Amino acid sequence: DFMGALDEVHAAFGSSEEELDACITNGIIHFSPEIDRILEEGRLRVEQVKKSERTPLVSVLLHGPPGAGKTALAATIAMQSEFPFIKLISPETMVGMGELQKVNAINRVFQDSYKSPLSVIVMDDIERLLDYTPIGSRFSNVVLQAIAVLLKKQPPKGKRLLVLSTTTRRHVLEEMDLLDSFSSQLYVENLRKLEEVNTVVKRLELFKMDGERHTAMATLAKSGLEGQLTIGIKKLLMTIEKARQSEDPITGFVSDMNNL
Amino acid sequence: DFMGALDEVHAAFGSSEEELDACITNGIIHFSPEIDRILEEGRLRVEQVKKSERTPLVSVLLHGPPGAGKTALAATIAMQSEFPFIKLISPETMVGMGELQKVNAINRVFQDSYKSPLSVIVMDDIERLLDYTPIGSRFSNVVLQAIAVLLKKQPPKGKRLLVLSTTTRRHVLEEMDLLDSFSSQLYVENLRKLEEVNTVVKRLELFKMDGERHTAMATLAKSGLEGQLTIGIKKLLMTIEKARQSEDPITGFVSDMNNL
Amino acid sequence: DFMGALDEVHAAFGSSEEELDACITNGIIHFSPEIDRILEEGRLRVEQVKKSERTPLVSVLLHGPPGAGKTALAATIAMQSEFPFIKLISPETMVGMGELQKVNAINRVFQDSYKSPLSVIVMDDIERLLDYTPIGSRFSNVVLQAIAVLLKKQPPKGKRLLVLSTTTRRHVLEEMDLLDSFSSQLYVENLRKLEEVNTVVKRLELFKMDGERHTAMATLAKSGLEGQLTIGIKKLLMTIEKARQSEDPITGFVSDMNNL
Amino acid sequence: DFMGALDEVHAAFGSSEEELDACITNGIIHFSPEIDRILEEGRLRVEQVKKSERTPLVSVLLHGPPGAGKTALAATIAMQSEFPFIKLISPETMVGMGELQKVNAINRVFQDSYKSPLSVIVMDDIERLLDYTPIGSRFSNVVLQAIAVLLKKQPPKGKRLLVLSTTTRRHVLEEMDLLDSFSSQLYVENLRKLEEVNTVVKRLELFKMDGERHTAMATLAKSGLEGQLTIGIKKLLMTIEKARQSEDPITGFVSDMNNL
Amino acid sequence: DFMGALDEVHAAFGSSEEELDACITNGIIHFSPEIDRILEEGRLRVEQVKKSERTPLVSVLLHGPPGAGKTALAATIAMQSEFPFIKLISPETMVGMGELQKVNAINRVFQDSYKSPLSVIVMDDIERLLDYTPIGSRFSNVVLQAIAVLLKKQPPKGKRLLVLSTTTRRHVLEEMDLLDSFSSQLYVENLRKLEEVNTVVKRLELFKMDGERHTAMATLAKSGLEGQLTIGIKKLLMTIEKARQSEDPITGFVSDMNNL
Amino acid sequence: DFMGALDEVHAAFGSSEEELDACITNGIIHFSPEIDRILEEGRLRVEQVKKSERTPLVSVLLHGPPGAGKTALAATIAMQSEFPFIKLISPETMVGMGELQKVNAINRVFQDSYKSPLSVIVMDDIERLLDYTPIGSRFSNVVLQAIAVLLKKQPPKGKRLLVLSTTTRRHVLEEMDLLDSFSSQLYVENLRKLEEVNTVVKRLELFKMDGERHTAMATLAKSGLEGQLTIGIKKLLMTIEKARQSEDPITGFVSDMNNL
Ligand SMILES: Nc1ncnc2c1ncn2[C@@H]1O[C@H](COP(=O)(O)OP(=O)(O)OP(=O)(O)O)[C@@H](O)[C@H]1O
Ligand SMILES: Nc1ncnc2c1ncn2[C@@H]1O[C@H](COP(=O)(O)OP(=O)(O)OP(=O)(O)O)[C@@H](O)[C@H]1O
Ligand SMILES: Nc1ncnc2c1ncn2[C@@H]1O[C@H](COP(=O)(O)OP(=O)(O)OP(=O)(O)O)[C@@H](O)[C@H]1O
Ligand SMILES: Nc1ncnc2c1ncn2[C@@H]1O[C@H](COP(=O)(O)OP(=O)(O)OP(=O)(O)O)[C@@H](O)[C@H]1O
Ligand SMILES: Nc1ncnc2c1ncn2[C@@H]1O[C@H](COP(=O)(O)OP(=O)(O)OP(=O)(O)O)[C@@H](O)[C@H]1O
Ligand SMILES: Nc1ncnc2c1ncn2[C@@H]1O[C@H](COP(=O)(O)OP(=O)(O)OP(=O)(O)O)[C@@H](O)[C@H]1O
Ligand SMILES: [Mg+2]
Ligand SMILES: [Mg+2]
Ligand SMILES: [Mg+2]
Ligand SMILES: [Mg+2]
Ligand SMILES: [Mg+2]
Ligand SMILES: [Mg+2]
Repeated sequence: DFMGALDEVHAAFGSSEEELDACITNGIIHFSPEIDRILEEGRLRVEQVKKSERTPLVSVLLHGPPGAGKTALAATIAMQSEFPFIKLISPETMVGMGELQKVNAINRVFQDSYKSPLSVIVMDDIERLLDYTPIGSRFSNVVLQAIAVLLKKQPPKGKRLLVLSTTTRRHVLEEMDLLDSFSSQLYVENLRKLEEVNTVVKRLELFKMDGERHTAMATLAKSGLEGQLTIGIKKLLMTIEKARQSEDPITGFVSDMNNL
Repeated sequence: DFMGALDEVHAAFGSSEEELDACITNGIIHFSPEIDRILEEGRLRVEQVKKSERTPLVSVLLHGPPGAGKTALAATIAMQSEFPFIKLISPETMVGMGELQKVNAINRVFQDSYKSPLSVIVMDDIERLLDYTPIGSRFSNVVLQAIAVLLKKQPPKGKRLLVLSTTTRRHVLEEMDLLDSFSSQLYVENLRKLEEVNTVVKRLELFKMDGERHTAMATLAKSGLEGQLTIGIKKLLMTIEKARQSEDPITGFVSDMNNL
Repeated sequence: DFMGALDEVHAAFGSSEEELDACITNGIIHFSPEIDRILEEGRLRVEQVKKSERTPLVSVLLHGPPGAGKTALAATIAMQSEFPFIKLISPETMVGMGELQKVNAINRVFQDSYKSPLSVIVMDDIERLLDYTPIGSRFSNVVLQAIAVLLKKQPPKGKRLLVLSTTTRRHVLEEMDLLDSFSSQLYVENLRKLEEVNTVVKRLELFKMDGERHTAMATLAKSGLEGQLTIGIKKLLMTIEKARQSEDPITGFVSDMNNL
Repeated sequence: DFMGALDEVHAAFGSSEEELDACITNGIIHFSPEIDRILEEGRLRVEQVKKSERTPLVSVLLHGPPGAGKTALAATIAMQSEFPFIKLISPETMVGMGELQKVNAINRVFQDSYKSPLSVIVMDDIERLLDYTPIGSRFSNVVLQAIAVLLKKQPPKGKRLLVLSTTTRRHVLEEMDLLDSFSSQLYVENLRKLEEVNTVVKRLELFKMDGERHTAMATLAKSGLEGQLTIGIKKLLMTIEKARQSEDPITGFVSDMNNL
Repeated sequence: DFMGALDEVHAAFGSSEEELDACITNGIIHFSPEIDRILEEGRLRVEQVKKSERTPLVSVLLHGPPGAGKTALAATIAMQSEFPFIKLISPETMVGMGELQKVNAINRVFQDSYKSPLSVIVMDDIERLLDYTPIGSRFSNVVLQAIAVLLKKQPPKGKRLLVLSTTTRRHVLEEMDLLDSFSSQLYVENLRKLEEVNTVVKRLELFKMDGERHTAMATLAKSGLEGQLTIGIKKLLMTIEKARQSEDPITGFVSDMNNL
Repeated sequence: DFMGALDEVHAAFGSSEEELDACITNGIIHFSPEIDRILEEGRLRVEQVKKSERTPLVSVLLHGPPGAGKTALAATIAMQSEFPFIKLISPETMVGMGELQKVNAINRVFQDSYKSPLSVIVMDDIERLLDYTPIGSRFSNVVLQAIAVLLKKQPPKGKRLLVLSTTTRRHVLEEMDLLDSFSSQLYVENLRKLEEVNTVVKRLELFKMDGERHTAMATLAKSGLEGQLTIGIKKLLMTIEKARQSEDPITGFVSDMNNL
């Protein structure tokens, strides 16, 4: 039975649930309809992998600016699939690894996934896995080639695999001919409206009273922020928490938002 | 006798038939006369290798856009030759190999082929074997040199060899002076006509009723797709399967085809 | 209790207090209000790390011209945090190390910090850790990637970390996409006013009598230095000490200040 | 005596006669006076090495387009010398060798030659020995330097050596300063006249009747091929053999010749 | 006591006095007031290191054209310091060393110096230590980084260090950001006046009689050398010694001086 | 005594006399006064090294076009010195050596020379020692640095050294900053006058009768060769020897001279 299979797969290869959980420490705040659309798209891909016999391999690239919430969203989709094999490939566990060690680590996760009837792999921060740096466009071609091949390699008969990958460097992946390897792409945006900021501030209870929040948001509106605002949820969180520690949170928050 | 030789060769070097089979999971759909022309050209090359004493080595390059069906067609020609030695050289089995390991793996297949009276080698995705990346035009010169030499090296007396290779990067191989090494080239095209798409959709039974299919195709025609359409069979398959999972397959399919 | 935890952490990982002390041999002279602003900003970051649950990782980049006092200020902020884990990552201890050894050394400090409830890491002279040289923009990409990942890696649950880094090459770090990884930046300026110089000269008692100092400063003012002066505290210290050894300190000092 | 010396040299170092023979599988067809001129020039060099005391080392570079017959001609000259030491240095035996292995293999042949009173070395496809690729002008400088030195190194007293080398990349060797190292150069041309093609077609008996051949050649003449034709003997052989397998050899041959 | 300390330091680390002596084989000829100024500056630096508590590390760069006498002057200053630890770091002892060996050798001298209360290190020909070559601006970044760090690293408490370095490539060091690391710079000039040449010729007694010398110098003056003369003391020495061997020293010397 | 010292040095380090002899197989033909001037300059350098105490190290660079006779002239000067230590450093003995092996081989010769009271080192074909190639200006910086240092390194007290080096690439050495390291340079020219050619032809007795030679030279004169002739002695030798083998030496020689 499925639950048995799930347990077996878990026993054999472990799971990344705890690590993926840690990617969503501050939860998912539904500050815009986009968030729901992305999660729904993810859910549909999960279903497609489960059901179609002709597409045993589907891969999705979540791309967008730094701190937009890409990793948290990919982790959320992966966790909600409830597939028996859920694994995170992250540069954080590969500090100091050589190129071949990295390739082996990545390859092992894919090989393990081929043993589970249904698998999700979250491949986080793909440009960091590639050791990419814009100065001189340096990167590990060895890792790139491995990822390019693995993203095209069909799982063995009867196995299915969903790959969710994140990047801030969609354009670089395009130059590397890597985009063709993905079945589809999802754009994760920054917050661009004061109303979205308001939702987050409210939810995180930065101010003890609604009046304070209204004052803060009104001040921001007056300073003409609307229309030129662009901030990732991650930076917004940092800004709110910094303001929280200051003696005058309204001034602190407004000033920092104006100095982004 | 020939069947005995075939068995011996099989016994000694194994065969790639299962792997090649897996390259054709979704079969060959004859959506255009081009498909038949390519398969016929392949059959003729097979005959030439069998019969001419003066050309014991013939090599064919199948090139075309990503997902056009190059690998499936090369695999089909190879399987239909019924030569005793049929082998696939694929980057998928070489993830994480160093340059020299790759050269050794490729070289070994050629050396083994020299022991069979008649051999086919499918050398898939040649740019990936070369670890080619467009950024800075990086690639493994070691592998390139080995392939260049092997494509020119006559098999020993009395042995014959057909090499079928695939690539999406014909232009790069030209810059590398590798094109001269092939006896001939075959271009594998994308689908460009709605009628071809119709054939595939019908064959895969995306819609339960012909009326639905007609509606979908008519809508695509109306949106002016004819004339600017270009889609590989691989992507078309993915699009059809995605539409199949959606609640409204007509809308889903039409919308995705319009957003290629 | 906290003091017990502190002792344990000390016992397990040692501390860099002596090394950090050596970075402030000539103390902190409050020659301008900027110095106080920087130290206050540092203090606030320390508080933030201590208190906010949502931001367990805060990182600050102190940047400015050579010899402006960056290292001394970072060391001062770190020492004043009184966190149980205070460590210095400095190129001075890594002379002759290979790339991987450096990564391991840096990584180890971060890993150790993850075991203390509250940690400060001073990562000094980041461009030197990267072996950066402007000729051909050479640097260790291996070290860069490690630092980029470590600056984004959340400490495990319940642990908090403040990273203070220094550089004279903010622009290069920007080209390397490393600036996004810092929570905030602090600019450490050169001395630009004669009054600031006067404060330092007085404090260091270069002249035995105030009259001498007034003469010296007046001469400098007359030679039009105000407005075009820019000197780091480190170079000013060297100039003062050199003048102190000369037979005519006033002439020596004035002449050197005019020949910067 | 000489025959004894010849046997001794053979016994000690083996010979490449079989390999060289394999370079001339399809014989030498005298389709143009140039072929005879080249073979005569070769014969004269052989004599010069045999007789002049002042020039114990003579080296000749055969260059020309791909498939023009360079290797077959060099092999023929070498075989006709009847020197006791005749060796082939070919990239085909060096697949997968590292730079130093290649240098050692090449060097060993030269060292061995120094032990025979009269030696010929055929150094085939010099750009492939150098692992040359036009993209980024990559090549093995280690092998280049070794060849440059060996081409200038006098054999020991009383020993004589003729080096015959081939290349399609004379211009590259010039850029490498390697041309100065050769005593002389011989240009091997493509076929450029229909009459030359006729000679080859006749000799290979593509058509059973002379009338067929005349028809084919007349058709080619009518289509204006004369004057713009340029084809290597190797490609012409492949074209003839392909036509031979087709049901209508005349049409097949004419069509392929028009589509070069 | 100091003499005891000196002996101990000598015993433990040896000294470079003999090597430094060999840098001054032809002595120091005081052909211009500049020579005295440089030696006096050197003496003052020595005093500064001895006395100021705030500047335990002082570094001086002697730069100028090839053969101007940089090494001899640095060696002279070092020898006159009479510090207990006097060491020469010279590329001459590092022929064939790898980058890491060099770094270790250089680092060891600095580490040793940290054990003496007062030390001088002469770091000769810094561009050669860096394996610098103008073609492609190649150099050992590993050695550069080590030197950059060591030039900034304070000796431990109570220890003092003077570093005297020489180079003909000040501009390159500037591009490498290495100049900021030196406390000060001293320019060592070529000889540019005939009177200076006269002083050297007289001192070296090239001519047996003053009249001869006057004749030679007058001839040089007449040929318009004054104003366009520029020659390093090293080359002048070579020219004088060559003239000394010739049968007609006046003509020989004048002719060589005119053909510089 | 000197002869004893000479024998000892020979016994300890061997000598390159045989190898140097092999560089002059075809003797020195005095076809122009330049040849005598070069040999006389060489003799004077030998004397200078023997006598001047102030210049224990003298180095001369012989440069000129390929085949001009540089190596033969350097070998001749070295042999005529009759110094106890005479050694040849030649790329011919270093085929296949790595960079460090080369440096060690070169360094060992210099170290050995430091043990002889008087030494000559012939360092042949310096660009080949450096593995120099014009494509991409590649060369071994490791060997370059070693040579640069060794050319400046004074022999120990009481030892004297003359270095004679040859190159066809003076301009490249200049770009490498290597020219400053030589005490002086000697230019070895091609033959440029028919009279010089005549001297060589006569000396080598290409023609049995003077009349034949006069005819040949007159024909060359008539074809306007004078004024545009430029040929190295090495190539002239090859041309003469080739003509000698032909049935009609006059025509053969004249034709080859006109087709240079
Ligand atoms: N709607 C949301 N979408 C994504 N993350 C959210 C959302 N609401 C709150 N968060 C929180 O915001 C943070 C997003 O950080 P995350 O690491 O996912 O960003 P990122 O785009 O991957 O950043 P980076 O570019 O640095 O990799 C997480 O802590 C997450 O819990
Ligand atoms: N006429 C056809 N030609 C080729 N493939 C077809 C055809 N009809 C159906 N297919 C199916 O389409 C798919 C073609 O994929 P294939 O891997 O061969 O494409 P490709 O051009 O090699 O892709 P890539 O550029 O990614 O290597 C296979 O699953 C194959 O079964
Ligand atoms: N207000 C001040 N701020 C910083 N340093 C000060 C101040 N007053 C005095 N100092 C002294 O000045 C010196 C500053 O040197 P420091 O090494 O910190 O400069 P830096 O900017 O890090 O230099 P570098 O660019 O070379 O790394 C220290 O010796 C310190 O004790
Ligand atoms: N006149 C001829 N000259 C040379 N080869 C001939 C001639 N006539 C027939 N041949 C045949 O043509 C073929 C020439 O191929 P060969 O390998 O020598 O060409 P190549 O110029 O060396 O090719 P590549 O540029 O690929 O190295 C051989 O099979 C040879 O037997
Ligand atoms: N006033 C002087 N200054 C320096 N050297 C002098 C002076 N007078 C005589 N000499 C002699 O001149 C020579 C100077 O050579 P030195 O090696 O110091 O020059 P350098 O500038 O270091 O050369 P390079 O650029 O090649 O390193 C020494 O032999 C030294 O004894
Ligand atoms: N006057 C002469 N000068 C030099 N060599 C001469 C002279 N006369 C005859 N020869 C002969 O000419 C040949 C010169 O060859 P050599 O190898 O010295 O030239 P090279 O300039 O070193 O050549 P390369 O540039 O290839 O190194 C030798 O065989 C030598 O015996
Ligand atoms: Mg992320
Ligand atoms: Mg394919
Ligand atoms: Mg600092
Ligand atoms: Mg060939
Ligand atoms: Mg010097
Ligand atoms: Mg030579």
